Amino acid sequence: MKGKSFTFLVLFCYASLSAGLNAQRSGTIVMEDVERAHFRKEILIPDIAGYLTLKCDFHMHTVFSDGNVWPTVRVDEAWEDGLDAISITDHIEGHPKKLPGQKHNGYEIALPSAQMRDIILIKGGEISRNMPPGHFNALFVSDVNALDLPDYMDALGEAVRQGGFVIWNHPGWRRQQPDTTKWMPEHEDIYRKGWMHGIEVFNEKEWYPEAVQWALEKDLAITGHSDIHESYNYKYNTDLYPVRPLTLVFARERSEASIKEAMFARRTATLFFNRLVGKKEFIDPLVSQSVKVEPSHFSHEGYLYFNIRNSSDIEFTFLKESADSSELPARFVLPRRGTLVLRAKQVKGKAQNYLYRLENVLTGVEEHPVFMIRVQ
Amino acid sequence: MKGKSFTFLVLFCYASLSAGLNAQRSGTIVMEDVERAHFRKEILIPDIAGYLTLKCDFHMHTVFSDGNVWPTVRVDEAWEDGLDAISITDHIEGHPKKLPGQKHNGYEIALPSAQMRDIILIKGGEISRNMPPGHFNALFVSDVNALDLPDYMDALGEAVRQGGFVIWNHPGWRRQQPDTTKWMPEHEDIYRKGWMHGIEVFNEKEWYPEAVQWALEKDLAITGHSDIHESYNYKYNTDLYPVRPLTLVFARERSEASIKEAMFARRTATLFFNRLVGKKEFIDPLVSQSVKVEPSHFSHEGYLYFNIRNSSDIEFTFLKESADSSELPARFVLPRRGTLVLRAKQVKGKAQNYLYRLENVLTGVEEHPVFMIRVQ
Amino acid sequence: MKGKSFTFLVLFCYASLSAGLNAQRSGTIVMEDVERAHFRKEILIPDIAGYLTLKCDFHMHTVFSDGNVWPTVRVDEAWEDGLDAISITDHIEGHPKKLPGQKHNGYEIALPSAQMRDIILIKGGEISRNMPPGHFNALFVSDVNALDLPDYMDALGEAVRQGGFVIWNHPGWRRQQPDTTKWMPEHEDIYRKGWMHGIEVFNEKEWYPEAVQWALEKDLAITGHSDIHESYNYKYNTDLYPVRPLTLVFARERSEASIKEAMFARRTATLFFNRLVGKKEFIDPLVSQSVKVEPSHFSHEGYLYFNIRNSSDIEFTFLKESADSSELPARFVLPRRGTLVLRAKQVKGKAQNYLYRLENVLTGVEEHPVFMIRVQ
Amino acid sequence: MKGKSFTFLVLFCYASLSAGLNAQRSGTIVMEDVERAHFRKEILIPDIAGYLTLKCDFHMHTVFSDGNVWPTVRVDEAWEDGLDAISITDHIEGHPKKLPGQKHNGYEIALPSAQMRDIILIKGGEISRNMPPGHFNALFVSDVNALDLPDYMDALGEAVRQGGFVIWNHPGWRRQQPDTTKWMPEHEDIYRKGWMHGIEVFNEKEWYPEAVQWALEKDLAITGHSDIHESYNYKYNTDLYPVRPLTLVFARERSEASIKEAMFARRTATLFFNRLVGKKEFIDPLVSQSVKVEPSHFSHEGYLYFNIRNSSDIEFTFLKESADSSELPARFVLPRRGTLVLRAKQVKGKAQNYLYRLENVLTGVEEHPVFMIRVQ
Repeated sequence: MKGKSFTFLVLFCYASLSAGLNAQRSGTIVMEDVERAHFRKEILIPDIAGYLTLKCDFHMHTVFSDGNVWPTVRVDEAWEDGLDAISITDHIEGHPKKLPGQKHNGYEIALPSAQMRDIILIKGGEISRNMPPGHFNALFVSDVNALDLPDYMDALGEAVRQGGFVIWNHPGWRRQQPDTTKWMPEHEDIYRKGWMHGIEVFNEKEWYPEAVQWALEKDLAITGHSDIHESYNYKYNTDLYPVRPLTLVFARERSEASIKEAMFARRTATLFFNRLVGKKEFIDPLVSQSVKVEPSHFSHEGYLYFNIRNSSDIEFTFLKESADSSELPARFVLPRRGTLVLRAKQVKGKAQNYLYRLENVLTGVEEHPVFMIRVQ
Repeated sequence: MKGKSFTFLVLFCYASLSAGLNAQRSGTIVMEDVERAHFRKEILIPDIAGYLTLKCDFHMHTVFSDGNVWPTVRVDEAWEDGLDAISITDHIEGHPKKLPGQKHNGYEIALPSAQMRDIILIKGGEISRNMPPGHFNALFVSDVNALDLPDYMDALGEAVRQGGFVIWNHPGWRRQQPDTTKWMPEHEDIYRKGWMHGIEVFNEKEWYPEAVQWALEKDLAITGHSDIHESYNYKYNTDLYPVRPLTLVFARERSEASIKEAMFARRTATLFFNRLVGKKEFIDPLVSQSVKVEPSHFSHEGYLYFNIRNSSDIEFTFLKESADSSELPARFVLPRRGTLVLRAKQVKGKAQNYLYRLENVLTGVEEHPVFMIRVQ
Repeated sequence: MKGKSFTFLVLFCYASLSAGLNAQRSGTIVMEDVERAHFRKEILIPDIAGYLTLKCDFHMHTVFSDGNVWPTVRVDEAWEDGLDAISITDHIEGHPKKLPGQKHNGYEIALPSAQMRDIILIKGGEISRNMPPGHFNALFVSDVNALDLPDYMDALGEAVRQGGFVIWNHPGWRRQQPDTTKWMPEHEDIYRKGWMHGIEVFNEKEWYPEAVQWALEKDLAITGHSDIHESYNYKYNTDLYPVRPLTLVFARERSEASIKEAMFARRTATLFFNRLVGKKEFIDPLVSQSVKVEPSHFSHEGYLYFNIRNSSDIEFTFLKESADSSELPARFVLPRRGTLVLRAKQVKGKAQNYLYRLENVLTGVEEHPVFMIRVQ
Repeated sequence: MKGKSFTFLVLFCYASLSAGLNAQRSGTIVMEDVERAHFRKEILIPDIAGYLTLKCDFHMHTVFSDGNVWPTVRVDEAWEDGLDAISITDHIEGHPKKLPGQKHNGYEIALPSAQMRDIILIKGGEISRNMPPGHFNALFVSDVNALDLPDYMDALGEAVRQGGFVIWNHPGWRRQQPDTTKWMPEHEDIYRKGWMHGIEVFNEKEWYPEAVQWALEKDLAITGHSDIHESYNYKYNTDLYPVRPLTLVFARERSEASIKEAMFARRTATLFFNRLVGKKEFIDPLVSQSVKVEPSHFSHEGYLYFNIRNSSDIEFTFLKESADSSELPARFVLPRRGTLVLRAKQVKGKAQNYLYRLENVLTGVEEHPVFMIRVQ
């Protein structure tokens, strides 16, 4: 029973667990509390000077390629998970493999749902070839089906002609790069034509240190995506990791046009499962907006006690740069939305600075931001 | 070991859960722990004399009607959730509404997956008409597409002709029965023809006391189903309710043929969100196999202490039949797989029996099994 | 990437969560991930004009009366649970019952721990007599042991002489008020002397509608407390209810002196398990700071879609004041830190206002704030 | 409010979440669902031929030394966590450090509670000295306070004189053994006198490979314990690890005498956070009782599909002994109470055996049981 229209209200508002359980009505007993509540939970990542920090996932599949869900499910998930923008990027070649005879219309199916929920839906598709050159996402294109061309260069060229933003997906995917992650002549060709604009540093559950280096050297937008095929909650361990993998886009406004402008300007970073990767110019303000060290609130037996607060959904791992006599911990984790008390040996009459490296944050290959803890 | 001073640092800083489990391999770092583990978890419901108790859900949808998932997802979910048998029952009429031009082949798509996982997949479909007569599931049919006939009686007749087992679905669905749950002349017609074999006492999150009465009076198989359209974990609150709604089938073997035989013989019951409904002849042994009262293990200040153990996944709510001086609780809940200690005022030299009604178990309209607690 | 065949093995076997995180060191293997992370999580309740909203629990026990934990545990819990201030209020009479020969020094034991963690610890104790007059908390006293006097009036008088703030605890506790919640002559006496300053509207798992009325009529501070005896996580269902019961104090500063000033000025409210009770002058700004309705972001087929956002940790249940043609839901729950999308029938050219009553918020006996949803 | 006697009923029986929330009664509204349900959950570890497998934790602290909880809390926790026997082993020396003037009577305080809940409580204490020789638990002693002697040899001798079973605790505790885990002359002395009967292979969150070797060479009982000081749920990550660290005792009966006999006979093993360590003669039957491989239920495109079932609460990690052409996974984890489907290349006409090493199970130093998977 119960077509889509009927479930509409259930989707947008739910009965509280705390409001009592069973309402008897004309011989039918409704057990409201058996359903999960559905609502949007914001991800807390601070904006940085001049830009909004938008949370995006630009790589996902549906039944229109080899995914397992209907396109609207991607919107429902993005809404609940606090995303601002997504792109449904089904494999383009041949035809929707599971549904011969259908066209690639995941975007069209999902669009009204996205508009109702205030999710920015970006038209896209995945050009999926053997290595070289592998898989590429084309975002902001106008006609996905037109990218279904025999030669991959033609397909990429068509994407660019449509104004598309092209990302090299999972460059180190072991199935396509069994030995090591290589930049091949074919990638050089695409890159020199100006047809490669971004690269995935993270995909699904893998990340690629080489891709960080290439992104910085070649000025490619740094991205990270779920490449989700199943339903999100089936695939990922959301108890351990409540925040989805994200491409962070530093945009002037919350709009598709603004996201496109930011991406072509390479104003992106990626956060995936407590690892944050991006250029120093974006990462440094993200960190300093997220973590605050307070003046000490107590001194006792030669120690100062003070709070260090994390107002973001990014977990930070601190590693001391060098040994000292402060007795501050050599390593500690500051959880998302969490506050820790630290204690340091008091040095009479003077504030002291201690340097920590953020182990889980990368601004280059083996390059980590340094965070100064000022004890006063 | 380990006095307070030692635990001080541990208290203030901890090692991140998220820092482990990364294996570096040829330039690709794989984060295995971000994925959810998938495995089958058995539901503990005892077998009863002569029969296996099979856990089944015979009503679910996919993208081949108005569901949101690919047919194989229903198998994956059933496998993880400990089910023995399912039926994919997409709406039959017209064509697969979301996928014009496709045929109803959810069964064919899901079958290999079911066979690999040892899940019994039963071919079925939902004949979905306005009330009267409403919706009916046809199970064990051979050709679902052949049931797509303009007249509902023709459709039901064809189902029966194919050997199908016909269930009246959600008879009290408020959208189709806004006032009260009624048995209409059209249902009488179908029933008299011998074309109605079972009825849903529970559907999705609703249950229908009238349906219990009809099932017992008219000898219809008692069933209960999720009628799931979304992914299971998206729809239901699995934290509060780890056990899915089930039709229990008391079968001679774990096979499709045996399930069919049992259903036509009306050897079924339903368990839905801690409520168990069925005929006394099946419910009584289920209860007595699940709950055991042990002799007292301790006496103290005039009280006897003893264990009451529940080895099943059925939660039981006990309500005392009449006041007494035992000081046993007037009402208590025995959780699934849980043991409670009860204490009773000792009566010298004699074992005592106390009667409780199982509030959440129904063997008829407002008819509950009585459980005797023997204190010795 | 990653078609179905690739995910096959992943589906059937997974890497254990438990296999990581072992660091070998000189023959000892440390499994860091077996420990729970301990850190402070803030409770989000907005400040209101001119005042900080401090989160407090002024009623709890330790092994120095009939509680089960050491006094420092109360500080650890308060710190993790995001509280600003607590009072350890062990039963005063006779001697610490579990520890004959010891003095009441829970405060002294817990104080250094509280100071390290930036928790305001208020000295207090519970004067615990049979009804009438029942139990009373004395807060901000200087010498708890001096309150151990045979006559309850002497004990209350001594509390007041020390500058104490006196709260009538659990006035409707069924063990002491088996029939109904009564204001007895003894309470009138205490009140007339000016020795009763506050009252518990909530205690442990009970709340007392009569106490709300008395608080408003007699100008008593409205409070609510856990009265916790066990460890907090053992006692309460923190999965269902992540926010502890709280007395909210509207204070000029985060200091003991400021809390005391605010309480004597009756600037308090209580939040307990999704129920918020307080005077209109405090509740109205709390609500309007917490919930924001945004202009519509989409219109479609005659409906406007708009966000309603809750930035607080208070869940709100909305109940429509009167029927209308907007098709807005008659009732909905806005979860803590959650956003819902609502849709309303568009009325051409005009913004519309719709009134909802907040069902779980009380500003008097059966008096609820009204929230206006403006659709534009 | 609410002394111990009042909370008694609440402890032994609870109101179901599903039974409705708020019961109004004489002006007091009781919110039953805010409380956590307390009940015993059995740990599933099979018995082995001739013996019951008892689940025990023989090392824990209370406020009578440097622990944070009242002795009865240890019984409550053990009951809920499915243990059979515990020992409260507070540090003996001097006096109860937190409670000067009190005697060591944790056992006496906890005993009635243990008897009511059917938990076997074993009298014990921890002789706690600097290294050498470190800390030792004395179990089954009759007078703990009599072990408070200046010379550690006198204390150990007195324990043995009382019939005590002596365990060397955390032999590799880095605070006492900062460099490496050493067997010192003092330990040799104690051992030669016959005064060391067991050793901790696991303590709190550490384990000691050397201790496994010593246990096997010197015939010491293998044990593992929480050494818990805080409340159990505060200390450990029970979401990741639902099973407590255990000493498994293979006893003839569920009684204190039987445990004592088994321990002196060295019939023990330890399970800690998915690692199982013990002598081959006990581990092999534990494994074979826990894990069952079923005949294949399906063949498809040259593969056989079959179930492997784990009926225990012990997770097993399988690592293939040598490469082969079966395409069975090189490594997989079989979760507790979980079933996996494996698939193997079909070899026509013949059953095949494949050998796996159980990576998380130790029967000696770097010695793992081999498990044969028979595919047929």
